[in-house]
Amino acid sequence: MALGERGGWDKSESRYCGVETEYDEDVPSLLSSNLNSGGFDFVVAPLMDPNYRPSLVEETSSESRALPFAGSDLILSPSQWSSHVVGKISSWIDLDSEDDTLRRDSEITLKQEIAWATHLSIQACLLPSPKGTRCANYARCVNQILQGLSNMQLWLRIPLVKADDESMGENLDDLNDSWELWNSFRLLCEHHSQLSVALDVLSTLPSVNSIGRWLGESVRAAIVHTDCFLTNAKGYPCLSRRHQKIITGLFNHSVQVVLSGKPLHHLPGASSPVSHVDNNVNDMQRHPLRLYLDYVGYLYQKMEPLSEQERVELGYRDFLQAPLQPLMDNLEAQTYETFEKDSVKYIQYQRAICKALLDRVCDEDASTITTVLMVVGAGRGPLVRAALQAAEETGRKLKVYAVEKNPNAVVTLHSLVKLEGWENIVSIVSCDMRCWNAPEEADILVSELLGSFGDNELSPECLDGAQRFLKQDGISIPSSYTSFIQPITASKLYNDVKSHKDLVHFETAYVVKLHNIAKLSPSQPVFTFTHPNYSSNKSNQRYKKLLFEIPSDTGSAMVHGFAGYFDATLYKDVHLGIEPSMPTPNMFSWFAIFFPLRQPVCVRAGSPLEVHFWRCCGPTKVWYEWCVSSPTPSPIHNSNGRSYWVGL
Amino acid sequence: MALGERGGWDKSESRYCGVETEYDEDVPSLLSSNLNSGGFDFVVAPLMDPNYRPSLVEETSSESRALPFAGSDLILSPSQWSSHVVGKISSWIDLDSEDDTLRRDSEITLKQEIAWATHLSIQACLLPSPKGTRCANYARCVNQILQGLSNMQLWLRIPLVKADDESMGENLDDLNDSWELWNSFRLLCEHHSQLSVALDVLSTLPSVNSIGRWLGESVRAAIVHTDCFLTNAKGYPCLSRRHQKIITGLFNHSVQVVLSGKPLHHLPGASSPVSHVDNNVNDMQRHPLRLYLDYVGYLYQKMEPLSEQERVELGYRDFLQAPLQPLMDNLEAQTYETFEKDSVKYIQYQRAICKALLDRVCDEDASTITTVLMVVGAGRGPLVRAALQAAEETGRKLKVYAVEKNPNAVVTLHSLVKLEGWENIVSIVSCDMRCWNAPEEADILVSELLGSFGDNELSPECLDGAQRFLKQDGISIPSSYTSFIQPITASKLYNDVKSHKDLVHFETAYVVKLHNIAKLSPSQPVFTFTHPNYSSNKSNQRYKKLLFEIPSDTGSAMVHGFAGYFDATLYKDVHLGIEPSMPTPNMFSWFAIFFPLRQPVCVRAGSPLEVHFWRCCGPTKVWYEWCVSSPTPSPIHNSNGRSYWVGL
Repeated sequence: MALGERGGWDKSESRYCGVETEYDEDVPSLLSSNLNSGGFDFVVAPLMDPNYRPSLVEETSSESRALPFAGSDLILSPSQWSSHVVGKISSWIDLDSEDDTLRRDSEITLKQEIAWATHLSIQACLLPSPKGTRCANYARCVNQILQGLSNMQLWLRIPLVKADDESMGENLDDLNDSWELWNSFRLLCEHHSQLSVALDVLSTLPSVNSIGRWLGESVRAAIVHTDCFLTNAKGYPCLSRRHQKIITGLFNHSVQVVLSGKPLHHLPGASSPVSHVDNNVNDMQRHPLRLYLDYVGYLYQKMEPLSEQERVELGYRDFLQAPLQPLMDNLEAQTYETFEKDSVKYIQYQRAICKALLDRVCDEDASTITTVLMVVGAGRGPLVRAALQAAEETGRKLKVYAVEKNPNAVVTLHSLVKLEGWENIVSIVSCDMRCWNAPEEADILVSELLGSFGDNELSPECLDGAQRFLKQDGISIPSSYTSFIQPITASKLYNDVKSHKDLVHFETAYVVKLHNIAKLSPSQPVFTFTHPNYSSNKSNQRYKKLLFEIPSDTGSAMVHGFAGYFDATLYKDVHLGIEPSMPTPNMFSWFAIFFPLRQPVCVRAGSPLEVHFWRCCGPTKVWYEWCVSSPTPSPIHNSNGRSYWVGL
Repeated sequence: MALGERGGWDKSESRYCGVETEYDEDVPSLLSSNLNSGGFDFVVAPLMDPNYRPSLVEETSSESRALPFAGSDLILSPSQWSSHVVGKISSWIDLDSEDDTLRRDSEITLKQEIAWATHLSIQACLLPSPKGTRCANYARCVNQILQGLSNMQLWLRIPLVKADDESMGENLDDLNDSWELWNSFRLLCEHHSQLSVALDVLSTLPSVNSIGRWLGESVRAAIVHTDCFLTNAKGYPCLSRRHQKIITGLFNHSVQVVLSGKPLHHLPGASSPVSHVDNNVNDMQRHPLRLYLDYVGYLYQKMEPLSEQERVELGYRDFLQAPLQPLMDNLEAQTYETFEKDSVKYIQYQRAICKALLDRVCDEDASTITTVLMVVGAGRGPLVRAALQAAEETGRKLKVYAVEKNPNAVVTLHSLVKLEGWENIVSIVSCDMRCWNAPEEADILVSELLGSFGDNELSPECLDGAQRFLKQDGISIPSSYTSFIQPITASKLYNDVKSHKDLVHFETAYVVKLHNIAKLSPSQPVFTFTHPNYSSNKSNQRYKKLLFEIPSDTGSAMVHGFAGYFDATLYKDVHLGIEPSMPTPNMFSWFAIFFPLRQPVCVRAGSPLEVHFWRCCGPTKVWYEWCVSSPTPSPIHNSNGRSYWVGL
C-alpha cells in the first residue's frame, strides 16, 4: 500500500511500512488483518511458537520430531512469504548466557528458524538484540549462518541508546552505547553485507552526534514504538520535533519504518484524518495502530520533494567510480556534454575573468590595450565562451588562444569558432600545454583542470608547464586550490571496495556521490597549490599530517576512510568548490572523492585520529599515499603508487 | 673469526660479532684493522660522508653530480662487501622534522645510500633511530624502499628503553617505551619481513617483562655500548648479571652483537686473558675494543651446550607444520619411529597402568583374576609393551586386545607379538575402535590419541566410540585431558603465515617448536574432556571465554596469535603434557600448537585481552573457531571450519 508518493522520483524502500506482531499460527489471517484491512505493507512476525525449546522436545521424543511450525509453507504463496513477511526470530534466545542448556537451545532454535525462513524465501529476518553487553557466541553462530545464506538479510535489532557521559562509569557492565554492541557484532562477522541493523527508536533519544553515526551504518529498519508518540491537541498521536527529524533522516537513507507496541491513543468512532482504507474493508475492524501508520505516512508525504539535481544524482548515490585520467586518456563527447551543462561553474569563471580584465586594463586603456588570454585545456570551448562574454561585459579587448591536447575536442572547437564568428579573436592550438611553443606571452591563463580532490587530475604539473608563456605579472585563473579531507563512517562503500577481494581496490581513491555516510569531524585542508609558482622549490610533492577530533558526545565511531573535496580560488574573492562548509551552490561537476582504509579504524570517544597524506611524484606518474598513525597505525596505503596513480 | 664454538651444533648467526665504526674513505684499511687484526667479523660503517647534504650539492652544481661515495665499488671484492660490511645509513637524517629542507635532504640521502648499498650487494643496512616519537614519514619512505628491495635486510636502530610507570605522564612527548616506536614503524610498513630491529643496549635496562617482548620480534642485532661495561677486580671490562642474561638470551635467539663506543678500560701492556690474535698481527696495534670483544666471546663460550633434545629440535624451531590427521590418514612408519623413541611418554603410561592394575586387583586376587586391557590405537605396539611391563612389575595377570585401524601398523604389530612370544596374552584386532564389536568388556582402556592441543586429533570422538566395550566401573587411561592457550608475540610465525597470501593459512592451527616468541601471560585452560563420559549431555562441542591480563610492567605488546598446549591425567597423579608451567620433562612427542590471528592485536598496558575459543562438531568433521573480542574485536576465525578441520 506504501506510505505515499514523495515529490520527485524517489522509489526507495522507505515507502513501505511494517508492523511488528505476536506469534499467530494463522498467518493468512495475520496478513489479512494487518495488510489488506490494516494498511501496512509487511508484518514482522515470529515464525515459531515462542514456547518451543529444543531441549524439552529432545527429552520426550528424540526421533521423528516435527518442528512446531505455523502450519506448513503452503498456507501462503511463495510471493506472499517473500513480499509481506519479515521473520522475527524468537526473542527468548540468549547465546551468551552462562546457562549451557539455554545457550544450546538458543543456537538450535536460531539455526532452525533461519533454515525455515530460507525455505520460505523470506527476504529478511529480525534477530533479537543481544542480551547484555556480550555477544561473541551469538556473533559466532550468526556468522556461521551468514557463510551459507543465499539472499536473505539478517537485521540485528539494536536499541537506539547511548547514556550521557555523566552517567557513564557508574554501571560499567550496563549498556552505555548500543553502537558498541553493533560494532563488536559486525566486526566479529567481518562487516558481512547481509548483516544490517534494525534500530529500536525509543521515547528517549541520545545526542544528535551519536545518532549521526548510524547514517554511515547499514540500517535497514527503524522500529518505532507507540510510546514514542505524543498526543496532539485533537488527541491524535504525533512525534516530537526531534523524533520527526530522525524519522525523516532515516527515510532519506532508505530505512523502512516498522511500528511496534500497543495502541496508546484511542479516538472512539473518529475516522482517521488521511484514510486510505478501501470501501470493501470499511466494515472490518480498524487496525489498532492505524492512527500511527497514518501519522508516519503524513511525515513521509510532507518531506521536501527532491530537487532536480538530487534526482539526477539519485542513481549515483554511494556508487564508486574510478577517477578520470584526463591527461592520459582523452575525454569522450558524453563527458564534455555533462560538464558543459554546469552553468554555475562557467558563471564563476566569467566573474573571475571579468575582475581580472578590469584589474589588468583600466577604463582609459580599454579601447587600446588588447589582453592576451590563453585557455589551456579548452575542451569544446565553454571557457573560451566565458572569456569572450567577460570581455563583452567589461568592454575590454581580448585575444584568445584556445590550447587543447585532445584532437577530437579540437574538431568541435573549430566548428564552434566558425559558427560563432570568433575567427578574428580566437586562435586554436592543438597541442599539449606542457610542450607548446607559444608565439607570445599571456596576460591571463585560464584553466579548469581540477579533480574532486583539487590537484588529483594533475593541474599543478600542467600549469607548471604552461607557466613558461605567462607574463611575469600575469594572472592564473585559478590562482590557487586546496584539497580537504574528513573521516567518515561508510560501511556500504567499505563493503563495495571489499567485495573486489584485492589490495588494489583498497588503495584506490574513488569519485562518489556520498549519501549513506556519517561525517565524523569537520574537514581540514590538505594540500594547497598556487599559480603562478615562482618559488625556488618547485616540487609538487606534499606531505601533510592531520589531527581530527571527534566530538565527545558522538561516542566511539568507525572510520572506513576519508571523504575528499577541494576549494579553488579562481581570482580574488571568486571561488569554486565542493568543500561541505562552503560549497558553490547548484554546481554538479564534481562529486566527492573517497580514500578507503584497508582496515576500518575504530576511534574511541575523546581520542584523536592522526592521519597522514602524501602527494608523491615520479617521472611518469603522480600518486597519493595515506595512513592512520593514531589511535592504531594502519599500513601505509598505495606505497609507490602500486595500486592507484595518475599518469603524466 | 667468530666468537667461538658453542657446545652442541648451534651454527647460529650469533657467533659473529661486529663493530660500529666512524666514516672512513679507506674501507680496505678499515676492514683490515677491525677484522684481520681486530678480531671482529664485520663492521657497521657509514657508506657516505656525513657532511653531505643534497640541498647544498644541488645549489652549487645541478648537473653531473657525482655522489661523495667512499671511493668506488672496486675497493673491495663483492664477497667482502657482502660478508663484512653492514651499511650504516647517515645518522643525521630526520624524515619527520618540521624543517622541509632537512626532510627532503633526508629522503634523498636515505634512498641514495640504500641504492648504493644494493649496488654493493651489502646484506644489511642499519637505519638510524627515528628522532623523537614521530615516524610516519620515515616509515613511508622506508616502506617505499622495501617494496623494491632485493635481499637486503634493513635494521631499524631502536634504543632498549622503557620508562617506569612512575615517571610516565611527566613528559608525554618524550619516549616512554621504544617498543611503541618500533610497533608503529612496522605496522606502517605492514610487518615487512626485510625490516627488523637492531637494539641499542644501554647501561640502564628496563624491566624483565618489557625486555621479554623483544624475543617475539624480529631482532637481528644488539648494539652493546662500551659504557654498559663494568670493571672487574683485575681492571677488565665485564657486564652486570642482568646484562649478561640479556646478551645470553639474545645469543639464544640468533641475535648478533655489535660493539660500539670508545674504549673505557685501559690495561697498559697487559695482554688479553683469552687472546686469539694471530702471531703475524701481534706487532700491529691492538684493537681498542679487543677487551670487550674477548668478554663477549667469553659469554658466548660459557653458555650451556645444547641438550640432545635441543639439537634434535633445532631444525624445527619456529617452523610451521600442518597438524596430523591420524584419523583420516594413516601414519607412516617414519612417524611411528619418531614417536616410539619418546621413552618418557611410555614410562608415564606404564606408571599409570601399574597404578590402575593395583587398584583393580588386590594382592590376594593377583594370581586368579585376569585384567582385560584394551589398547585402542595400538600403532606398532609401544603401549602394548608398556602394559605388559606394568603387569610384570605389579605381578598382575593380563589379557590384552590391541586394536588398530591402520592395516600397515597391524603388520608390524603381528610380527612384534610373534617376536616377543606374546601370542597367548595379546589379541590383535585390525579395526576402527568406533565400530569394533568387542567379544568382551574391558577393565582398562588405554589410548594415546592426543594432539598438541589435547583433543585436536579427535580423542574424545574415538573414546566415545570405544566406551561401549568398557565395563561400567572400568578405567580409561587417560582419564582426562585439558587444552591450554596463552597469547604470544610471534612476528616470525605471523610473517610465515602471511607469506601464503590467503585466508586459509590464517585460519589454520600449526604444530610448531616455538622459539622466537614472547609469552605475554600465563596459559589458561580451555577445554577439558573426561573418560569414560556417562553424563547426559554427551556433546563434545565446547565454548570457552578467556581473559588474559598482561603484567603492567610489560608495557603494550603485540599478540600475533595463541600458543596451545595440553595436559593429560593418565591415571590419578600420573600426568603427561606440554603445558609450560608443568611439562613432562624430556618428552619430545609434542610441539606446541599455534593459532594465528589474521590481524595482530595490540594490547595496551593494563587493558585485558578477551579471547573466545569454540570446538565445533559436524557430521563429518570437527573444527575450532576463535576470536578476540577485546580490546578490539577480530573477525571470527575459521567459521564453519572453512579453512581448517579434522576429519572424523
